[in-house]
Parts: sequence; C-alpha cells; structure tokens
Amino acid sequence: MERNHETVAVIGAGSWGTALSLVLADNGHEVRLWGHNPVQIDEINAFHTNKTYLPEIQLPKGICGYSDLKESLAGVETIILAVPTKAIREVLAKIIKVRSEPLTVVHVSKGIEPDTLLRISEMIKQEVPENLLSSVVVLSGPSHAEEVSLRHPTTVTVSSEDMEAAERVQDLFINHSFRVYTNPDVIGVEIGGALKNIIALAAGISDGLGYGDNAKAALITRGLAEIARLGVKMGANPLTFSGLTGIGDLIVTCTSVHSRNWRAGNMLGKGQNLEEVLKSMGMVVEGVRTTKAAYQLAEKFGVKMPITAALYQILFNGVDAKDAVDGLMTRRRTHEMEDLENILIDQLGEMEN
Amino acid sequence: MERNHETVAVIGAGSWGTALSLVLADNGHEVRLWGHNPVQIDEINAFHTNKTYLPEIQLPKGICGYSDLKESLAGVETIILAVPTKAIREVLAKIIKVRSEPLTVVHVSKGIEPDTLLRISEMIKQEVPENLLSSVVVLSGPSHAEEVSLRHPTTVTVSSEDMEAAERVQDLFINHSFRVYTNPDVIGVEIGGALKNIIALAAGISDGLGYGDNAKAALITRGLAEIARLGVKMGANPLTFSGLTGIGDLIVTCTSVHSRNWRAGNMLGKGQNLEEVLKSMGMVVEGVRTTKAAYQLAEKFGVKMPITAALYQILFNGVDAKDAVDGLMTRRRTHEMEDLENILIDQLGEMEN
Repeated sequence: MERNHETVAVIGAGSWGTALSLVLADNGHEVRLWGHNPVQIDEINAFHTNKTYLPEIQLPKGICGYSDLKESLAGVETIILAVPTKAIREVLAKIIKVRSEPLTVVHVSKGIEPDTLLRISEMIKQEVPENLLSSVVVLSGPSHAEEVSLRHPTTVTVSSEDMEAAERVQDLFINHSFRVYTNPDVIGVEIGGALKNIIALAAGISDGLGYGDNAKAALITRGLAEIARLGVKMGANPLTFSGLTGIGDLIVTCTSVHSRNWRAGNMLGKGQNLEEVLKSMGMVVEGVRTTKAAYQLAEKFGVKMPITAALYQILFNGVDAKDAVDGLMTRRRTHEMEDLENILIDQLGEMEN
Repeated sequence: MERNHETVAVIGAGSWGTALSLVLADNGHEVRLWGHNPVQIDEINAFHTNKTYLPEIQLPKGICGYSDLKESLAGVETIILAVPTKAIREVLAKIIKVRSEPLTVVHVSKGIEPDTLLRISEMIKQEVPENLLSSVVVLSGPSHAEEVSLRHPTTVTVSSEDMEAAERVQDLFINHSFRVYTNPDVIGVEIGGALKNIIALAAGISDGLGYGDNAKAALITRGLAEIARLGVKMGANPLTFSGLTGIGDLIVTCTSVHSRNWRAGNMLGKGQNLEEVLKSMGMVVEGVRTTKAAYQLAEKFGVKMPITAALYQILFNGVDAKDAVDGLMTRRRTHEMEDLENILIDQLGEMEN
C-alpha cells in the first residue's frame, strides 16, 4: 500500500500508547512518544524497550522518546492522546500552553468524567480552544495492548464528527494485522468503550465468587443490554453496541486475563475491599470511576441499569459482593423480551426523530 | 415456592440430559432418565453417578435410570429430549412405537439438519403424529452441564409456539440457581443455539493458530452479525440474538474450556485434520454438521455468511485454516456500519410485515 509518512506525537507512554506507537512506526511514520517519566523515556531511547508496560517487546527504531512536551509537538499535526481519563484535562492544559497551531486530537482512552458526565471527546472540546483544534477522533475496539504489540490480528473502529479526519486516522494506523474501520456514531463508540469496564468489573466479581461461565455469560448479556439502553437515550445508534466497540470490546474485557478491570473485580469477588484492590493493582482501574459516572448518567436519563447500580453499591457503599450479585440473579423478570423490547422501542423512537 | 410434583422422562443420559435431570430432581420431581447403554443405567441406579459424562457429581436419589423406553414413558406427560441432533429422528421413531397418549416434547439439542435444513422443533413435528404431540418446547441458553450440575447460577430461555406449554416447562425447571425465562421467538432461539457452534469452532481455530483475544473478539462480533442476518431472513426477531440464546450462548461457547466445539476448533487450528479431531474427541461435535447446514441455508436465503463459508472450506474442502482465517481478517469492508445497517434494514422490513 502507498502511504504518506507523517510525524505523529503519542502522548502517554503506558501500554496502549506504546503499542499504538509501534503500529505507527511499523507503518513507516516517525513517532514521538511523550511520557512524564524521564527514566522511562531514556529507556525507550537507549534500549528501545518499555519494560514496565510491555515487558517482552523490542520497539521499532522509528519510535523516539520525548520528555519535553513542546519538543514532541513541534511541527506535528496529529496527536494520539493515550493518558488515563483522570489525567486528560491536566495534559491538555499543558499542551495548549506550548502550542499555537491547530491539532487533530485522537483519543484512545475509555471513560466518562464523573460529575460533569462528559464523554472524552466533549472534555477535549471543552479544554482545547477552537482555534487550536482541527478535529477530535476516537479510536476504540477490542484491543489488548500486549497482543497489538505482538502483531496479533486486531480490529478497531475510529469515529469522529469529521469523517474525513477519521479516514485520515484510519490511513495512519491500518496495516495487515491492525485493521481499522470507521463508524460515524461518536456517542455510541465512546459509551460502549467506557461502560464495558463496569461489566468487566462485575464479571470479575462473578468469577471471583466462583460462579463460572454460565453466570458470567448472563451478566455480559444483561450488561450489553443496559449499556445500549443508556447509549440510545444519549443519542447513540443502537447498532453500534452490536459492533466492535460494543459487544466486541465487552467480550475481550470480560474474558481475558489481560484485563485489569476484570482482575480488579476478581479480587473484589474474592473478598478484598476496594482500597486494597486499587493499591495492589498499581495501574489505573478506569471501571471504578466509570461506575460512578454511569450511575449518575442512569439517574439523569432515567434508565434502569441494575448491574451498574449493584456495582455502585459494592464499590462505594460497602454492600457485600455476593449479596449484590445474587440479587441480580434473582431479581430479573421471567419474560426475557421485556427488557429487550424496551431497547427496540427506544430505537424506533430514535429513528422517528 | 409451591410446586406441583410431576413425573418427567429425560431421554438421553449424556452430560446435558443428566444435568437437567438433576435440576428437576432438586425441584422434587420424579425423574426417569433413559439411556441406551444398560451399563451406564445400572451405574446411575446403583451408585447415583454418571462418571463418563459428569465425573465429579453425586446425583440426587430422585433420578431413576431406565434402559426400557416404554417403561420410562408410562404415565408421563412431558419428556425432555436430550440426544444429539443426529439421533433425534431415530429416537422419536422408537418413542411413537411405544406411546399412544399425547406428549409435550421439550428439546434441548442445538443443531440444524443438513439437506432438509429443518430446525429441531420442525423435525419433531415431522416425526411425531399430531395426535401424539401436545406441544413442542425448546430450552436453550448459556449453560455448560458441568456448571449446572454444580448448582452454579445459570440462566436459560424456553420458547414455544404454545406459550402456556413454555410456562409449564419454566415452572418445572426454575429454582434459585437455575433461572428460566420465556421468549415467544422459537425461530430465533433455535437458530442462535445451533449456529453459535459454528462460531465456536472458528474461535477455537483462531486460538489454535495463536491469534489471541483481540482476533477472537472480532470473530465473535462478526459471527453474531452473520447469525442474526440469517435468522432475521428466516423470520426470527432480531432482538433474540442480543439475548441469552444469542450473544449469551455465543460467549459461553467461544470462551469456555468446557466447550467441545471450541476444543475441536482449537485442534484444527493447531494443524490436525477433521478426521483426527473427531476421532480424538469421542463426543459429538454438533458444529461440524451445523456448518454444512448453515452453508446451505446461507445459499438458500441469499445471505452473506463469510465465517460460515470459511469454516465450510476448512472442514469439507481441505482449505488451510490459517489461510482461511487470514482471509477473513483482510477481506472485510472498512466501514463498520455497512453490515450492521443491512441487519437494521432487514429488521425494519420484518416490523413492517
């Protein structure tokens, strides 16, 4: 494939930022990988490794580590924002201080901001002045960083209100093992990516309680239904939840040993409390913050989200995990289609609008 | 819960028939478990075990083994038909020979008959004379027998054209750990249950090739889309594929070590041929027959089913598994919604009818 080679800045040198840098470098782009830890950046430049996050990977030489943000952005048109949702506003504030030309911001984080209840693309638009922002694009899908860095076949979706920008990002990343699709439904892509972490926590709890695959499959199925119910109320296309960023990402997060949200849930199910779990993880567990945000969104939009509500009680009100999960199993209606039909009714309502 | 105790015959003493017998016996019903192997039946009656199929389980005393079909049916109104799809016609022919009163037949098998392309409820109606058949009910959902027999939380769906019969079956089975829901969409429930075995074979192949969780999640997502596409063309409610017998059963079958279809696929992905795999499994692999039937159904209804087609080439035309799976990864369109929108169009067409 003919490809224009660009210089791209990847902001955030965690596992996902590093894996995406590797994809871009494989495609012949010059990659500037910015991280806040100078020791880690020195490691990347001296040894072409990032052992804390991707212990077994030799990075391509096309990745150059930067600890100076201004330098990393000089002359760059597109940045990949790969920092935890908690750090997004702070990092963007630093970027706009050192930048005077417009940027395309591609975000790859998954979350909803508690209290403001904003999606990440909305946070970016709030934080970056219009004259500095060409476009916002989201990249999401079932994609463990470890597997991407091993060049295992992976499929993701890019979405933007500016579909030309989405297609440019598709061109930047697409290659034989990393397949990139477009979807114009930004709301659905962002909501699916964020809320799957809640269900992954719940699935981890179920596994931690020793409940097995039948129970977990039921949880995932009901979880997708409640995510879709909320998403459609917020303006998403219901079909997005049947795609890569919906059910695809949900499956990978709920069933893979790589998933830190699942692992955190698993420890909760085995009886540890939230504080102990977060301490021993040593990495960000996005699902915890997202549970709070989703609980607030469910109230705001008047949507029933029983799994989210149960998890909220476990995480923030000290309710026993077993009692909460048992409650989910027994409270359900006996006619399966009732819940599903509510989605269809919402969906038809959307189409009539 | 107040419950009327009945005598129920379970026809087929494999793992699923035995696990369902255990649920019924837990609910206080008298269970007659019929099997064709007298040694196994003697084991059930003498030791209350069925070590070939559920090695670690002590069966309740309310399960009585029968090797005489006529005896097992005497005075019984409801039978649970738990035999491989391949044996269904033969077993039904034997039943009608020894039976003169009408029966409710609850089938719990998952498959489509190759060449006739009939669903199992259609095969039952073809085989059993009208005067001997009160109702046909299907019970399906994410439910590994091993976990059901351990009383792990499990959710299933019952469906019938006769919803009163479905509710009677719901009452027979439902208890604290085995939750039973109703859904009037027989076609969707039967198609989802049958076709998920194809995707499980494909997921096993992907895992056998060492492709990881990202690739598998993409396969499952696309697999659900092609199952729904066919199902809707056959008259199913598209929402059923978002429920327990659709995505729920698909997840459990594609991600669990208990799944024999996944295991067979895994061996194929590691380079064994179909004959070797079937030999070493020693159990029925429904997905192999179903692949042939689904391939024929896709042609008949003019539906694109790329995963089914690739699997058909691997199983029956000797195409290399790696080439076929790589072909699936690279052939796909770049705009995710194209396929999904086709489902929506079909769905709207259904609702207008």
